Parts: sequence; C-alpha cells; structure tokens
Amino acid sequence: MSLLDEKFSKLGVDNAPGQEKRQQGSRIQLRGENIPGIPVDFSHGDVNENAFAPTPGSLEQFIAGVRRGGEVAYTEYRGSSSVREDLAGKLALFTGAPVSADDGLIITPGSQGALFLAMGATIGRGDKVAIVQPDYFANHKLVDFFDGELVPVRMDYLGATRDTGLDLTQLEEAFKAGARLFLFSNPNNPAGVIYSPAEIRTIAELAEKYGATVIVDQLYSRLLYDGRTYTHLRAMNINPDNVLTIMGPSKTESLSGYRLGVAFGAPAIIDRMEKLQAIVSLRAPGYSQAVLKTWFAEPQGWLEERITLHQSIRDDLLMNFRPVDGIKVRTTEAGSYIFPRIPELVVTTQEFIKILRLQAAVTVTPGTEFAPYLTDSFRLNFSQNHAAAIQAIERIIQLIERYRR
Amino acid sequence: MSLLDEKFSKLGVDNAPGQEKRQQGSRIQLRGENIPGIPVDFSHGDVNENAFAPTPGSLEQFIAGVRRGGEVAYTEYRGSSSVREDLAGKLALFTGAPVSADDGLIITPGSQGALFLAMGATIGRGDKVAIVQPDYFANHKLVDFFDGELVPVRMDYLGATRDTGLDLTQLEEAFKAGARLFLFSNPNNPAGVIYSPAEIRTIAELAEKYGATVIVDQLYSRLLYDGRTYTHLRAMNINPDNVLTIMGPSKTESLSGYRLGVAFGAPAIIDRMEKLQAIVSLRAPGYSQAVLKTWFAEPQGWLEERITLHQSIRDDLLMNFRPVDGIKVRTTEAGSYIFPRIPELVVTTQEFIKILRLQAAVTVTPGTEFAPYLTDSFRLNFSQNHAAAIQAIERIIQLIERYRR
Repeated sequence: MSLLDEKFSKLGVDNAPGQEKRQQGSRIQLRGENIPGIPVDFSHGDVNENAFAPTPGSLEQFIAGVRRGGEVAYTEYRGSSSVREDLAGKLALFTGAPVSADDGLIITPGSQGALFLAMGATIGRGDKVAIVQPDYFANHKLVDFFDGELVPVRMDYLGATRDTGLDLTQLEEAFKAGARLFLFSNPNNPAGVIYSPAEIRTIAELAEKYGATVIVDQLYSRLLYDGRTYTHLRAMNINPDNVLTIMGPSKTESLSGYRLGVAFGAPAIIDRMEKLQAIVSLRAPGYSQAVLKTWFAEPQGWLEERITLHQSIRDDLLMNFRPVDGIKVRTTEAGSYIFPRIPELVVTTQEFIKILRLQAAVTVTPGTEFAPYLTDSFRLNFSQNHAAAIQAIERIIQLIERYRR
Repeated sequence: MSLLDEKFSKLGVDNAPGQEKRQQGSRIQLRGENIPGIPVDFSHGDVNENAFAPTPGSLEQFIAGVRRGGEVAYTEYRGSSSVREDLAGKLALFTGAPVSADDGLIITPGSQGALFLAMGATIGRGDKVAIVQPDYFANHKLVDFFDGELVPVRMDYLGATRDTGLDLTQLEEAFKAGARLFLFSNPNNPAGVIYSPAEIRTIAELAEKYGATVIVDQLYSRLLYDGRTYTHLRAMNINPDNVLTIMGPSKTESLSGYRLGVAFGAPAIIDRMEKLQAIVSLRAPGYSQAVLKTWFAEPQGWLEERITLHQSIRDDLLMNFRPVDGIKVRTTEAGSYIFPRIPELVVTTQEFIKILRLQAAVTVTPGTEFAPYLTDSFRLNFSQNHAAAIQAIERIIQLIERYRR
C-alpha cells in the first residue's frame, strides 16, 4: 500500500455525521418490530422552520449581496474587507481582545474550512500535535492528513464536575515531548463541557512556557446554559501571535447551508491560511459572506430565546436518559450535544447505531469518531424539533432495553 | 527554513488574480499623467448587470433551496443526490460518455475546490506530475503543496495554428520518466486555445500506454467561438477509471459567487475526493447546490447570445492589439482570455502591471503566474462590459507606447 493509499484509508467518512446513507446494508439479527415515529437525524441540527431556522434576515442579506454583484462575488481570498471590518469589532467585543480586520481575520467556507486551513498552515510533516480525546472528529483526521504525529490528551468528562476533566499533566507532557501545536474545541464537541477559567489559564501558561501555538475552536461559545461563564483563551495573558480562534454561524445561528466560518488572531497563520485558501477553494462563497452582517447583530432577545429553547430540549432529553440503568451522561453546559455512555448490549455500539436507524428512524454519531476508545458512547445533536426529539429518545431507550445484555 | 516554511514561500498570492489590492506600494518612476477611464479588472470576469450577469433563475433556485431547508443545507459530502442525478444526465450528454450520479460525480466548492480535491486524492509525496506550461496558475502550486515533483510540458501556443502546440514528445517523456498523473486545462487557460482532436487522441493513447491518470479541467468548454468543435477526452478510447473531468458554472454562467464546481469520472478518485472534502469544507454550500439545476438548462438562445457577445468583445480587443508593434497575440478559440506577449519596455512586465493599475485603473494578471518563463506576457479576462473593456485596452496601448524601450 502506498503512502497515499494509507493516508486515505485513515480518512473514512462512512460513519461521519450525515454520511450514514452511503453505508452498505448489514446482516444484523434484528429483534422485534420497528418502532414508528418521526425520523430524527441527531447527526446534525435541524434547520427547518419547525425546529431552529436560520437567523432572521440572513436570506435577505444574501439577496442584497447578489444584487450588489461583482464586488460581493469576487472578494479577496481572505474575504470581503467590508465584512471583515464589521466582524472584527464584533469579535473583539465578544472575546475581549482586539481583532485586526486587515491582517488578523479570514473568512472561510464553514468553520471546517477554517480548521483545515489552520492545520494546513501549522503542521509540518512529522510534527507532534496535541489533540484532546474526545474532540471533534475531524481533528485527528487533519493531523493524519498533514502527516503530523498525534499526541492525545485525555478528557475525563464523566468524572469531572467543575471543569472539563482535561488531563493538564498529559498536556504538559505533550509539550515536553515536542508538540508545538495544541488544538481543542471549547465548549468540547462531543461532551458539551466548558473549560473552566483555571483550565484556560493553565493552557495559556503552558503555551507560553513551551512557545506553543494553540488553535481553539469556539464554534459553540455563544450557546451557554444555566448562565455559565465562558473564558476566551485569546483574552488571557498569552502571546497573540500564538493563538488562533475559530468560530462560525453554522450551529447556534443555523447558517450551515451558507458555508461560513472565521479564524482570527495570529497574523502569520492567517497569512498562510489565505495562501492555502487560494488553491483550496479561492474564497468563502462571495454572496454568503454578506450574510455575516447578521452575525452578532440578531434581533433583540433572539439568542436568549434560542438558548432557552435548547436548554429545555436538553433537560427533557436528560430526564429521559438519566433513569435508564447503565446510562451515564453529563449535563451539557454549552452547545447542542449530549454524549451518553450506554450500557452493555448484545450487539456492538456500531451495530446498535445501525439498528437505531433501521428500527427507530434515528441517526446518531458513534463515539469512536471522537476518540478511538469510546466504543460505548454516541453523540446526539439536540438542536431538533422538541417533540420529535423527545419521542426519538424514547425509541432509543426502548431499543436499549430490547438489546440489553 | 523548515519544510513547511518552504512550502508556504512557494504559495504566494500577491500576484494572483484579485489579490492585487494587497500589494504594497512600490517606487516605480512613473511617466506622464494618469489616463482617466472606467476601472476594469481583467483578472476575472465582470458579473454585474451591465456586463455578464449570473444565469437567469439562479437566485430563484437558491431561494427555493433555502425554503426547502435542512435537506438542502445538509447534503452528503459529495453533494445532494437529487442534484447529482440531474447533473449526471446533462454532463453525459454534453461530454458524450456516461456519468454515474451515484459513484462518478462530486459537487465541489468551485472548480478550484474540485482541482484541489482531485490533486490531493492523486498526488503522493515525491510523485512526478506532468503539468502544461502555460496553464492555470494553481496547477503548479497544487503539485508543490502536495509534495509532488513538477514535470513541465511546453505549449507553443503562439507558434502553432491548427492545434494548441502542446509538445507531445515532452509529454511522453514525462510518462517515461515516471509521471503517472497529467493535469491540463482544455481550453487552455491562459492561452484560450482548444486541443485538437488529434492532440486529445494522442493524450488518450499515451495515458493508456503508460497507465497514467489524466485530470482535465474543462471549465470553459461551453464558450466556443467561430463554431469550433471540442473533443472530450473522456469520450475517447481510454480507461474511464483513469480520467477525471472538472467543470463548473463560475465562468460562462457567471455563478462564481455561489462557489460551485463538479468533478466526474473515475469512481476511486471521487471516493477519495469525498473523504478529503469531509475535512476540507464538508460540502459545497448546500443552498448553492440547488442553483446547479439551472446549469445546462438555461433559457433557449442564452448560451448562443453569450458566445456572440464575448466573441464581439474578443474581436474588438484583438483589432486594437494587433496593429501595435511588438505585440503577439493568438486569437482566442474558447473561453474569455487573451494572453498577449508585449514588446520590450523600460520597466519589467511586473512593474508595468503595477503602472497599469496606478495610471490606467486596469488590472491584468502577470504571465509568470502561468509559466515562470512568461515574463513578457499578461492575461486579460475579457468577460467585461464591452465599452469599458475597449477603452481600457486603448489605455493599455497608450502606456505600452509611453514605456516602450
């Protein structure tokens, strides 16, 4: 097998969120009848009108962009300067540290695009890269793709209570072993936990001590429950040339269909990201960029309502899961994921996930996408129609009982 | 300098089309007064209403996509299956060979996205890759980025008349030397020439003989002048697993602002491209994908009119350029580029291009973006407002005379 064959053998997508329809049929011995109900795809949020629709005014901004024509269609590779000007101020205010529209911000095709460009800009062949386990499924794939060497740092999200349970000793050991890049999502995807101020402070201190670059994916940092506080790494006492922050309006704001993300911070990294963008896809979709005008400028009360609605779905889901013998689940602090550990079944979790699709019309994402050892967990994005989500959870629980060992 | 530093030092974007505004001021000794006139950016087409606006109905399809919601926003990474079904038939008809919607087609963020994914899917570290010179500026950058070894194949587009002037002996030598991948654009960007049936037949034969994969970028293959015929490589006697065709509606159809492209052909390459897309940007913008319904389904006569209008601008530009002493330019056969070689000046071509911007409000792309030795040429995209383009050419000619050695 060539090096290239090997690289692509690690890049499987069949279990990735949204790709389930491409899976081949399997020969699992099914038990009992299918359970009827509205299909729910927990692999991503539902952006339809009866769930969480895109930000008000987003389509209007897009249409206005099309009407303005060429200046909107053809932007610099790093994105429209007027949109960057507008965003820089908002992101500085949100994160508590300055953002330069000119050399400290790039608009990307989704926050996935930002991650890819950022990792491509910072990982050289053979470089050690510290990655949290569990964390967003693309992180380890990106390290592999850019020929980096993955140094895992464990998070005991079920054991901890006042913080995420990140093993900071392991993080320092990764730096000691030579890692000069650390990537993590905050709040953590899939566990839905927020790094405590103490954790963020220690990450900043370690990065300073070892001269490491930190890329922090803050995709869900606006959707905070129970009035929790959030600590922005870039506002800590840390060299701003060593921090890159990634965000985007695909989740809380339901704008995924427009493919928009941003990365801001370290100018040298952003310069490289732009060079890479020029050969990857030229730019984030031009007309879509205009939609960013709605970001951090939503109607009064819109974000608060969105938080309240999500929190209420979260609570109902947890209330259903908690009494089930053998299920362990941490209360989501931010974002729209829950990540239950399920009891032992007569089938593997991988098989059970297929059974959920076949017998309950429910799609979830296997825990192994987030850490190879999480064979007993799956992730659910609860940004769904409330009633449909609750009924789907009831079907999941029925099937857990049906297949329990 | 680390390997990564070296890689990014090769990935400059300052002279790339559309990036000119980021260039630093220079200290060129200017001669005479500025020449007033409507600014024209020949680095890309003008998609405004007074030039070449997007296909009729494109925005309406986008809006309908947004209204349909989640199914459109979240497609498989390879793109919406219903859009792929629709496209497969049209592309098969257009190219004269079957296209499989299920495993032979991927929708990408622009044709740039298709190129990046295709090259990433096929170039292993150290692999020899045959590339035409001159050809689209990203081609050689992609080979560098994926650690391939570039094997240039020359095209004598000014010397030839009945074909592109590609040096087919050099191409065979590239294959003999071990290249197993050949990438070229047809019609050629920047020269605007169409490969003859004999050239395409020989390329197919050589690919078969050496078991090489061929990626052909047919971005401009609908915009043909003077009733010329176009030969599709994929319809030749060639193993379909070894041919990947790239197209998109960004140019002829002026849909660049939606970021749409397609690659079709070799299933194994498309499989890898999808895996890569999953970590690059997830998918082409969901709502934009709906716009592909307008592609190859434009109103009757629309394409013919677009060709006529472009051909008339081409003719006027050539009529202005041709009498100028020392200018050599080939008549564009397809696409919207002209690529003149200019006479010797008292400044470098690079400097002259800056002078054009400063003194004539005209932007062009240096020939060195397309082949390192083309220091005496620049490219113009003449998909512009007709009158503004003619006046801009007159300003260019005035400045050529002013700076002539």
